[in-house]
Amino acid sequence: MNNLQKKDFTLRYASTSLYFGVNAIDKVKDSIKHYSRALIAMGKTSGRVSGAFSDVEKVLKDIGISYIVYDKVTPNPWASQAEELAQIVWSEGVDLIIAIGGGSPIDVAKVASVIALSGGRVKDYVTGTRKPIRALPLLAINLTHGTGTEVDRYAVVTLDDSREKHGLSIKYPEISIDDPRYTITLDKKQTIYTSLDAFYHSYEAITSTVSNPFIETMAKESISIIASDLQKLVNDLRNLDLRTNMMYAAMLAGIAIDMGSTHINHAIEHVLSGLEPKLPHACGLALTGPRMVYYVHKAVPELSAKALRFLDPEIKPLSTYAEKAQEAVREFQRSIGFEERLSDYGFTDKDLDKIIEYLFKRLKYMYSNTPFEVTMDIVKDIVKYAL
Amino acid sequence: MNNLQKKDFTLRYASTSLYFGVNAIDKVKDSIKHYSRALIAMGKTSGRVSGAFSDVEKVLKDIGISYIVYDKVTPNPWASQAEELAQIVWSEGVDLIIAIGGGSPIDVAKVASVIALSGGRVKDYVTGTRKPIRALPLLAINLTHGTGTEVDRYAVVTLDDSREKHGLSIKYPEISIDDPRYTITLDKKQTIYTSLDAFYHSYEAITSTVSNPFIETMAKESISIIASDLQKLVNDLRNLDLRTNMMYAAMLAGIAIDMGSTHINHAIEHVLSGLEPKLPHACGLALTGPRMVYYVHKAVPELSAKALRFLDPEIKPLSTYAEKAQEAVREFQRSIGFEERLSDYGFTDKDLDKIIEYLFKRLKYMYSNTPFEVTMDIVKDIVKYAL
Repeated sequence: MNNLQKKDFTLRYASTSLYFGVNAIDKVKDSIKHYSRALIAMGKTSGRVSGAFSDVEKVLKDIGISYIVYDKVTPNPWASQAEELAQIVWSEGVDLIIAIGGGSPIDVAKVASVIALSGGRVKDYVTGTRKPIRALPLLAINLTHGTGTEVDRYAVVTLDDSREKHGLSIKYPEISIDDPRYTITLDKKQTIYTSLDAFYHSYEAITSTVSNPFIETMAKESISIIASDLQKLVNDLRNLDLRTNMMYAAMLAGIAIDMGSTHINHAIEHVLSGLEPKLPHACGLALTGPRMVYYVHKAVPELSAKALRFLDPEIKPLSTYAEKAQEAVREFQRSIGFEERLSDYGFTDKDLDKIIEYLFKRLKYMYSNTPFEVTMDIVKDIVKYAL
Repeated sequence: MNNLQKKDFTLRYASTSLYFGVNAIDKVKDSIKHYSRALIAMGKTSGRVSGAFSDVEKVLKDIGISYIVYDKVTPNPWASQAEELAQIVWSEGVDLIIAIGGGSPIDVAKVASVIALSGGRVKDYVTGTRKPIRALPLLAINLTHGTGTEVDRYAVVTLDDSREKHGLSIKYPEISIDDPRYTITLDKKQTIYTSLDAFYHSYEAITSTVSNPFIETMAKESISIIASDLQKLVNDLRNLDLRTNMMYAAMLAGIAIDMGSTHINHAIEHVLSGLEPKLPHACGLALTGPRMVYYVHKAVPELSAKALRFLDPEIKPLSTYAEKAQEAVREFQRSIGFEERLSDYGFTDKDLDKIIEYLFKRLKYMYSNTPFEVTMDIVKDIVKYAL
């Protein structure tokens, strides 16, 4: 009897039923067969390349659901995309939204599913003028092992006029699919980025002021997997077993931020990629990450050490280990081949004031759970470190 | 800023909203204020001694919900209690059931909440003649750190005529409270029993044939806490911090069995306490536990070692370590003061055939997920070990 390799499961967390494992999509047929018309939202490429789109088409044809395709979602998506999608959903009589993608298509679909039934525009939900009181059901097919959006209530979109990138707490997917087969086609860079995204979700969640024991459990397990398997995966990109472990780690990290939150590193990253949309989200996180870890470990060494001991068992739960904590993360990133600098994306010393202003004026809500007092000096130091 | 000791959280798992932490009951007021008449189900003693009953009374009076009290639930409860309770609920126009207790009141209330709206008798749900299609909402106030019933769908009741003890998959509580204050009054023996119950939930769940990564995460964390804190707690029964950790561990173990299942150790225990209701559930588990571990470790050493390394880091994921695994569990139980024998409850060699017959004829479904082939010889060996 071999039950060691069975890694598929169904988890009901919050409002989401998550189907995890190879061919997980076969398990959702029963739950969606009563719908009649679906809209598939995705980007130009990965939905098709990953094989997910053809799997979805097959399922929809099998059970007789008609569908339309919207494949115009871009990375760092604009609010207007969600609004356009909502309009199509509403006018086409769609009763099920299926998002295939990394964070962008799933996040855009979350927002569109709300606007389609609760009305208004994205800005109304950012300001709180409208609440997401009703939403169309959403089936999310996850193609990466990073965002955690398949098990969290967040959506990140950028407002078209102000170019502000906002994280909205808006809705959970009703059904999510984490099938590691769909991540096999991620290239080396995407693999590194998306995994580091999960790493920083876990690290920020466990060290935030709203951390709790369940977040600790999720974050520790997630970081232990990333620490043990990411380097192997980078050298063996088509290894399904490692992809499975990494997708699992990212899912746990998603629960960790959903029950808690990220803090200063994510806030700074939203500023940076708001100013320069070419900067990939997780690349931004990894650029400032090690220095952020320094300040966090100094403030909450017990929580930080619980996470970082998987990178370096020598890291003690003491403030005096802050420098060592920073270096452990930096060295870990180096070991998997992450060597970029913020200057590669055109940032210089001269941008510091703009970054500070943006952060302190418009994204305060994003760092309110940072475990230390966020000062201009600290933010400047963190950003300088990344240049 | 001290965020290290914050241990309260809300977890939405399956159909349950779990409020964990000191004074958690204050958080449920909003979710129950629209009900008008409650029934409080509990046993004779612990509901009052723990302080939970007066907390509940205060909340109900505050928000103006009238209530009646049914305090006749016994340990190892009979099916007839659930049926009687359902009858009262139905005839009194109750719209919210509140169960205060260890496993027995919560389990009886689960079954009663189903029968009150889906009709029939307990036997109909055991045989599958009726399905739990509707149920009254249930608020479960947990008083122990063992059963996990506050986050699982199971209820254990004994049929009155045949004296068969059955585990039904019947319903989740809509709302659960894990407030560690209510466990402070558990005496030493109850503390040991209830914690070992959680230990065996985790160990059986992680080693069953339906184990999966999330079960592993739950079980490992739960066993690591029990291994590190139970002995301390036994020597310091009123330590709220240790009670909190143990209650958290038991809750994780509850999720582990809910997503998977127990197996042969629980099946044998149901036979034993079915034959001798004076045998406390977890005492039965601990009596046969170490020998069960021997067979499990031989069959699935990788999974078993993941759990047992918290008791003894020397235990390797190899079948040859089965004896060492058995001794690690035995020694752990000894270290917390568990030294009982099955013969203390009147069992002798002469009962072996009866136990075998009962198990193989009526409780096959309870051990179908055992990671090795369950033979009469193995069961005899496990039971003999406990005599």
